[in-house]
This record gives sequence, C-alpha cells and structure tokens, in this order.
Amino acid sequence: MIRPYERRVQYYETDKMGIVHHSNYIRWFEEARTDYLEQLGAGYEEMESQGVISPVLEVSCCYKTMARFPEQFQITVKMLQFNGIRMKLGYEVKDVKSGEIRCTGESAHCFLDENHRPVSLKKSYPGWYERLTKNGAL
Amino acid sequence: MIRPYERRVQYYETDKMGIVHHSNYIRWFEEARTDYLEQLGAGYEEMESQGVISPVLEVSCCYKTMARFPEQFQITVKMLQFNGIRMKLGYEVKDVKSGEIRCTGESAHCFLDENHRPVSLKKSYPGWYERLTKNGAL
Amino acid sequence: MIRPYERRVQYYETDKMGIVHHSNYIRWFEEARTDYLEQLGAGYEEMESQGVISPVLEVSCCYKTMARFPEQFQITVKMLQFNGIRMKLGYEVKDVKSGEIRCTGESAHCFLDENHRPVSLKKSYPGWYERLTKNGAL
Amino acid sequence: MIRPYERRVQYYETDKMGIVHHSNYIRWFEEARTDYLEQLGAGYEEMESQGVISPVLEVSCCYKTMARFPEQFQITVKMLQFNGIRMKLGYEVKDVKSGEIRCTGESAHCFLDENHRPVSLKKSYPGWYERLTKNGAL
Repeated sequence: MIRPYERRVQYYETDKMGIVHHSNYIRWFEEARTDYLEQLGAGYEEMESQGVISPVLEVSCCYKTMARFPEQFQITVKMLQFNGIRMKLGYEVKDVKSGEIRCTGESAHCFLDENHRPVSLKKSYPGWYERLTKNGAL
Repeated sequence: MIRPYERRVQYYETDKMGIVHHSNYIRWFEEARTDYLEQLGAGYEEMESQGVISPVLEVSCCYKTMARFPEQFQITVKMLQFNGIRMKLGYEVKDVKSGEIRCTGESAHCFLDENHRPVSLKKSYPGWYERLTKNGAL
Repeated sequence: MIRPYERRVQYYETDKMGIVHHSNYIRWFEEARTDYLEQLGAGYEEMESQGVISPVLEVSCCYKTMARFPEQFQITVKMLQFNGIRMKLGYEVKDVKSGEIRCTGESAHCFLDENHRPVSLKKSYPGWYERLTKNGAL
Repeated sequence: MIRPYERRVQYYETDKMGIVHHSNYIRWFEEARTDYLEQLGAGYEEMESQGVISPVLEVSCCYKTMARFPEQFQITVKMLQFNGIRMKLGYEVKDVKSGEIRCTGESAHCFLDENHRPVSLKKSYPGWYERLTKNGAL
C-alpha cells in the first residue's frame, strides 16, 4: 500500500500572479516520484549507487486550479507503464483541505548505465524489476 | 521577423547527473515566450499593466539530448493556435554550437482579467489580437 | 516549545558537483522561518492577510559541510533580535543522521504595510508583537 | 577591462510580493561570477575539466531596493581577496534604467581537487593564479 506524498506550498514557489509558478509542479512530480520509488523498494539513491540513472524522456502537466501559499497538497502517483526498459508514471496533485485537483501530469523515463547506455532492469536488476512490477499499480 | 531567444546554461541549473535539470526547460520556455510576445508587441508586462494575466493551462516537454553547463542554447518559438481566447505555442531548444536539438515542447494559455474571468483579446484588446494574429507564424 | 523544521533533500536541489546548490539553503531558511513564525502565532499568511509583508533586508550563510540527496536535514531557528520594527533570525542546518552541521546563517527583516511604509508591530499589531517577544528565544 | 554582467528579470524569479524573490540574487551572483572568471581566463568549465572545483564557503546579500519583472539589471563583480587558496568576490546589482542599486553582496570560495582536498592555485595552476592576480581588481 503506497502512501501519497504530502507537504505544504512554500513562499518561494509563488510568482507575481500570487499563485504557485507552473514550473514547480514538475519539481513536485519528482518529489512524489522519489518517494514512490523508494516506497516500492527501487529508490533513486539505491539505483544511482549501483550506477543506474533514470533520466526523464517526457513530461506533461495539465493545470486545473491554482495552488497558493501555504496550502497543504497531496500527490498520488500511479505506474502507467513499465517493461523494465521504459517507465511511465501518472500524477494527481490535490489541495488537502478542499480536495480540489490542482493538476494532473505524466512523466516517462528510461534507465541508463554509467556510460549512458540503455539498461534493461528485467535482465540486469531483476530485484528492482520484480518490485516495480509487483507493487506498481499496473 | 522574430529573433530566436538565446543564452547560456547556468551552473545552478544543473543537477547531480551533471546535466540541466529537466524542470528548467519549462522555465526556459517561459523566458523564450516572454521575449517572443514582446517582439510581437503583446508582452506580459504590458498585458499585466492592463490587468490581463495569461496563466498556463498545459505544458509538455520531450527531452532529446542533454544540455550541459555552460553551453549556449537557442529557443525558437512558434504560434501553433490562437483565437483570442486561447493560445498554444511550440518550442524547440537547440545547442548553438552543435545544432543538436535538446528538447521540444508546447504550452497552452488563456487570458484572464483581474477577477480571474476569461477575456477575449479579439473583443476587449483588438490591438493585441491583431498583432498576435498578424505576426504569429500561424 | 518550538519544533525544529525537518525534511529531505530533493534531487532538483543538487548541482553538478553532486551536492546541494548553495542558493537552496537561503530557500530552506525561508521554509524554516515560515514554520517558526507560524508556531509562534505570527505566520506570514496571517500577516499578509492583514496587509503586512516582511521583506528580507539581509541574508548570510556560512557553509560548513556538503548536504547530499536524499539526506534528512533539520533546521533550528532562533530569534536574535526583535523590537517590533526589525527582526533578526539565526539558522542552523544539520544532517539528522550524522548530526553534522551543514551550515549556519542569519536573516534580517522589517515589516511594511500595503504601501510599503514601515510598520511597528508593537504599535499596530500588539498581539503579534507580544507573541514574537514572549515566545521568541531572545 | 571587465564587462559587467547584464540580463533581464524573468517572470519565474518573482514571488507573491510582486518582486524578485531574495534567494535569486544568490543565483545572479553565480551568473555574474561565472562570466567574470571566464573573462579573466580562469572559468569554472576550464577548472572543472582539470578536476578543480570551487565551492562557496560564505555568501551574504544586503537588499536595498526591489527588483521587478522585466527590468534589465547589471552586476559588477570585484575581486576583494585572492591568495591562490581562498578568493573573495564582491557584487553590486543595479537597475540599468534608473541606476538604482538593488543589492550588494559577497561570496568566499576555496579550491578543491577531485578528492575534495584543498588546492593552491599558486603552486598547482600558476597560469590561473597569474591571471586572477593580474586582472582581478585587487
């Protein structure tokens, strides 16, 4: 059972419109993804310590309502696709108090070794593969 | 004739992978958009001084190759859709030296008045409408 | 009794040296300050809703050791000076696991009304003044 | 003769006070420093390609007036101290149009090799040492 990621909006994340600057949601997705993968037992820190990096191939965000300082927000992450070579995650950001959806988004990733060559987790890191397959809500 | 936007990668834009963090491209799109709209004669500063804001409805980015400190990059902006109520822009970021495409992306926007009600530029601000229609490479 | 502020280092806060970029500590000070003032009963949100802003006049940071992704850090805030017109706070950031000090710093602030004229909290907002005086560890 | 560093304020650098967030000036100092050291012939890129990094030991900023989107600002950098082991730089940020000083600041740096051991530029990289000594306005 995966816990959603939660924290508050920070002052420095706002812009002169008085709302959270749209670029920050992309960073929030990363925060939630880091937490999600760690909960699944395949965290970035462990991957990078084994020489595997997971760059972002694509990202998208659809803004619904405006987040404001200092509201508490919650991000739910879902595994949309995973085959050991590519991974696609979905995100939903909502305001905890009102339950309003702030935005939804997706990110796509691959896995590379230290020489930036593609890695198949299924073949080279079956432990991570299994954990991401078993626990990821595919 | 619109000049592409150009500047160098900054050190603080990199991350521990040694490359530009993917969230920064969303900020670069904004830098290029600001410059583009100003060149067209409908800049954000002028809009906001008249009480019109233009929030981001959607953003997407497709990462092709990795930008590194301190390379010089160039962003070309294109008007993909504009009807006075919504506007969609396309972006292409490339490394000036090698000509390699770093990423491509899109952003969608609407126009709101000070009470956050939708504004039709065609109806309420025909000058901006005309300039965005005439000069935007639709 | 004030609780220290705590969270983890995020990936996007690192730079190509593999450590947290030095500018982020200034943002961390703000996160800790926001939390501290709220615990004291004089939070930024409440102040701004009454038309009072508290800009930063000075900030300084002394870097001791390097924070890395994804360590858990803790920030202790101390009230160094407060007379209702100016406020000076001190910060100490440490790694929770090792107890190592990452950095120390200070920030100085004033209070302004909506027309950016100085405000004396003692005179105009005695409730906040009392709470900041009584609870701030002067 | 060193050219001052110049560019415009970006929208994403503002906060809900409608002004540039104070943490961004620390990043602007880095932008100006990068440009300054490169003009002197001892740029970060060249240093890092030789295995030398130059972490920040201390930084401070004194805020005078508020920078706003989309003003053009100029940063003048001065070498305050340099002995081949430590380097201290001073910064002055001003609005190009009005000439108003936005802020002043300082940063202190050392030089480390790939194992994070101190390096004396005088001893190990006399070329950089000479250029920083001769051209730096000590």
